[in-house]
Amino acid sequence: MHDLKAILFDTFGSVVDWRSSVTAEIAAFTEARGVTLHAEAFADAWRGAYKPSMDRVRTGAQPWTILDDLHRASLETLAPRFGLTDLTASELDHLTRIWHRLRPWPDSVAGLTRLKAKFIIAPLSNGNVALLVNLAKSAALPWDMVFGSEIPRAYKPDPAVYLGACAMLGLEPGQVMMAAAHNYDLKAARALGLRTGFFARPTEYGPTQTADLTPDSDWDVVATDIEDLAAQLGA
Amino acid sequence: MHDLKAILFDTFGSVVDWRSSVTAEIAAFTEARGVTLHAEAFADAWRGAYKPSMDRVRTGAQPWTILDDLHRASLETLAPRFGLTDLTASELDHLTRIWHRLRPWPDSVAGLTRLKAKFIIAPLSNGNVALLVNLAKSAALPWDMVFGSEIPRAYKPDPAVYLGACAMLGLEPGQVMMAAAHNYDLKAARALGLRTGFFARPTEYGPTQTADLTPDSDWDVVATDIEDLAAQLGA
Repeated sequence: MHDLKAILFDTFGSVVDWRSSVTAEIAAFTEARGVTLHAEAFADAWRGAYKPSMDRVRTGAQPWTILDDLHRASLETLAPRFGLTDLTASELDHLTRIWHRLRPWPDSVAGLTRLKAKFIIAPLSNGNVALLVNLAKSAALPWDMVFGSEIPRAYKPDPAVYLGACAMLGLEPGQVMMAAAHNYDLKAARALGLRTGFFARPTEYGPTQTADLTPDSDWDVVATDIEDLAAQLGA
Repeated sequence: MHDLKAILFDTFGSVVDWRSSVTAEIAAFTEARGVTLHAEAFADAWRGAYKPSMDRVRTGAQPWTILDDLHRASLETLAPRFGLTDLTASELDHLTRIWHRLRPWPDSVAGLTRLKAKFIIAPLSNGNVALLVNLAKSAALPWDMVFGSEIPRAYKPDPAVYLGACAMLGLEPGQVMMAAAHNYDLKAARALGLRTGFFARPTEYGPTQTADLTPDSDWDVVATDIEDLAAQLGA
């Protein structure tokens, strides 16, 4: 690990807590409109549309589409089902951009700040550049670079995403670590020669979460959170 | 200008002082080898190869090539002409990466730090991502995003460079300012609807510089340096 130069971070769930953030904004928005709905269920349903919507792009059933537009389309389908009707274009934009304002986990900013002093740090996310840049401004994430999905025009776990980022950094995959709270992401990265760092986010999906509570493999580093990852990497 | 959201910066010459940085490193390297050469002339000749080398890519005479590789090829041609022979691959790499270690102008970090509090700031440079990320680490440039030339696979003033960056930020060209010490860059940006900010770097090309000493047009902001740009933009 002495040759490690860069750490790429999964973002949704790993660095920021999408569920509590989306829930809070949806609850505030619907309360102000006098609509009663189960905001956590709304957040879960919206996130539930994430993978299927990317799969349509991955399989070519839909042409390349950035995540903001996938989020917006899912929202338009979802909102009426929850009794949220007659949203204006400006309200739909405002709600879609909740994903630009997600809150970091308590250890994220401190951990990233430590890691930045020793390594190049960047998100490697399915989010688009605008989403990730706005998120970094809002949550004070001190990235050195932002790898949005429209740079390779592909979604993880497509190998082009991981290898494209390594190539742009001028690094061999073995000099780069993928860090995530999701085993599938690390599995894809390891298959391409990247180093791997796991930390669990046991409430990412709420109190009844069952997936990704523990490492599925002997990842290079297994940490409790991003500050612990920094400590284990001597940062 | 009240709708301005992002400022894109030309980098070589505008944010960092390539000439004094390259001169100092070439002088130190050659002195240690006991070779006598005119280090400023070497820096000027190396930079002189910059535009012709990109022109070969722009015209299609050479396939897409990142700036690190153009710098390396120019160096290999140039070094023997200055009596610098028998360079190893590792020495050629070390010297090519001088461009990753250029020093900022005295006002750059303070000015960018002020602007970052109010706007998205990013380089929009012909440098490749690795060069620009390493430069930002080395010079403490607090970018929110790094637009290297291999993202659009094009060199300025190709419109794809400017418009691609605006699109990735999710912004209209009128919400984005190009800031540079070079009139040609602002001319290209203005033609596409971007805002423009000029500040002269009267010694970029040394004490006998004649180009870009003054604004060629009525750019939206004309500043003395990046701190003054920040002041004029209320940052």
